[in-house]
Amino acid sequence: MFKKDLYRYYGNEGESFLHRLFRPPEIKYLKAYRRANMCNTPILKQFYELKLKVMSHKTHIQIPARTQIGEGFYIGHSGRVVIHPDVKIGKNVNVATGVTIGQENRGARKGVPTIGDNCWIGTNAVVVGNVKIGSDVLIAPLTYVNFDVPDHSIVIGNPGKIVTREKATEGYVCNKV
Amino acid sequence: MFKKDLYRYYGNEGESFLHRLFRPPEIKYLKAYRRANMCNTPILKQFYELKLKVMSHKTHIQIPARTQIGEGFYIGHSGRVVIHPDVKIGKNVNVATGVTIGQENRGARKGVPTIGDNCWIGTNAVVVGNVKIGSDVLIAPLTYVNFDVPDHSIVIGNPGKIVTREKATEGYVCNKV
Amino acid sequence: MFKKDLYRYYGNEGESFLHRLFRPPEIKYLKAYRRANMCNTPILKQFYELKLKVMSHKTHIQIPARTQIGEGFYIGHSGRVVIHPDVKIGKNVNVATGVTIGQENRGARKGVPTIGDNCWIGTNAVVVGNVKIGSDVLIAPLTYVNFDVPDHSIVIGNPGKIVTREKATEGYVCNKV
Repeated sequence: MFKKDLYRYYGNEGESFLHRLFRPPEIKYLKAYRRANMCNTPILKQFYELKLKVMSHKTHIQIPARTQIGEGFYIGHSGRVVIHPDVKIGKNVNVATGVTIGQENRGARKGVPTIGDNCWIGTNAVVVGNVKIGSDVLIAPLTYVNFDVPDHSIVIGNPGKIVTREKATEGYVCNKV
Repeated sequence: MFKKDLYRYYGNEGESFLHRLFRPPEIKYLKAYRRANMCNTPILKQFYELKLKVMSHKTHIQIPARTQIGEGFYIGHSGRVVIHPDVKIGKNVNVATGVTIGQENRGARKGVPTIGDNCWIGTNAVVVGNVKIGSDVLIAPLTYVNFDVPDHSIVIGNPGKIVTREKATEGYVCNKV
Repeated sequence: MFKKDLYRYYGNEGESFLHRLFRPPEIKYLKAYRRANMCNTPILKQFYELKLKVMSHKTHIQIPARTQIGEGFYIGHSGRVVIHPDVKIGKNVNVATGVTIGQENRGARKGVPTIGDNCWIGTNAVVVGNVKIGSDVLIAPLTYVNFDVPDHSIVIGNPGKIVTREKATEGYVCNKV
């Protein structure tokens, strides 16, 4: 799985020596997340989860081991990313820094989002509540999303507005696996 | 005071052994802040303030020792929080990451905010200027607030809009002290 | 150049002993950036660029050595700042934490912004695309800017609105060089 993520970054399933030596914290975290998420041995899993938690103290990336994320996940740049453990994310999704994907605690949308394939979530954007984000959706930076978004859409503004567009994430989600 | 803050996190005034061992940076910072804020011995206070400053370089939480914060303060998740030293905050307030509570430098609202009790400030929200935020106010993520907000309100959007609601922070501000 | 930046912070071109001893990460990064940016010796430049990259893993400030920034650059507070390497920034510019100045990847505005002199960019604001930000422009916190902004303007909201004002950054951009 981690190799598929690397493919999103570099266009092939490995790293160069220099990339590995100076591996940025978001890729380190992604590797630790994949290991904790895939592990089936209970004791080892607990150890990996703990390691992930300690890493998140330093990197400010908080994606718990329980979160379900499809192949080819891409975290753009170093910095805070917060994702709720119950969130489900599809394949080939890009998330920028400052993004929060979280829970609404009451009301009709109580719960967490489900996100489709080939989505791009811009810097500082927030997606909350029991909402369904389709596939091929581009969420612009600083957009607040607490509603369903259909496939092939751009969401922009606060409150967010939906603009329909074929190939919404063209040029944004690259090196798909 | 720090015990009251812990109550907000865990529902009791202590930590388990594991929580203490792997204490997240925001709780470490909160402890250091309370110590620096409460200390009455001048030399010791200076030392604690310096320690707080050095901690903020690592945690990116920047709440100066001088800031007045009531009992039961809760910082949600690790990451940057910036609060101006002259800000006054009431009891049982929740602040998420990415939040800035700051100063306007000129004009009619020159100054810093005063925030009431039982408030919840969502991720990446910004509150600035000499404004008064009432009690039981929920400020949604990504909301820009540079105006007064009455008690029992939700503020949402950018520019922010006020929605009146009894029990505005129900389900969001928990474990009140 | 770094001395001119220090002037923006402290009103003179040096640091006190204590400021130097407990130099905040954003000023450390600024020094490393200026060194990497100004260096003319190819091997040394590569070393400085690598050092800058490693520093950005810790500070979450990501301003590549190639970015062109005029005299007197000011990063307010510690935390994430992401700037694209092709961005051009004028003199006496203030940037707060959470700011992203980035690229649009397609369409009429494909490219990166150019920013004039005496600009102030508030916390969590985002400026993207091949747009021209004039001089004496104040971009409010949480503002999303993907359009040209003329001189002497305030931009506020998401979507951002332009308000014309003489001395737009008065009280915000101080200690000009």
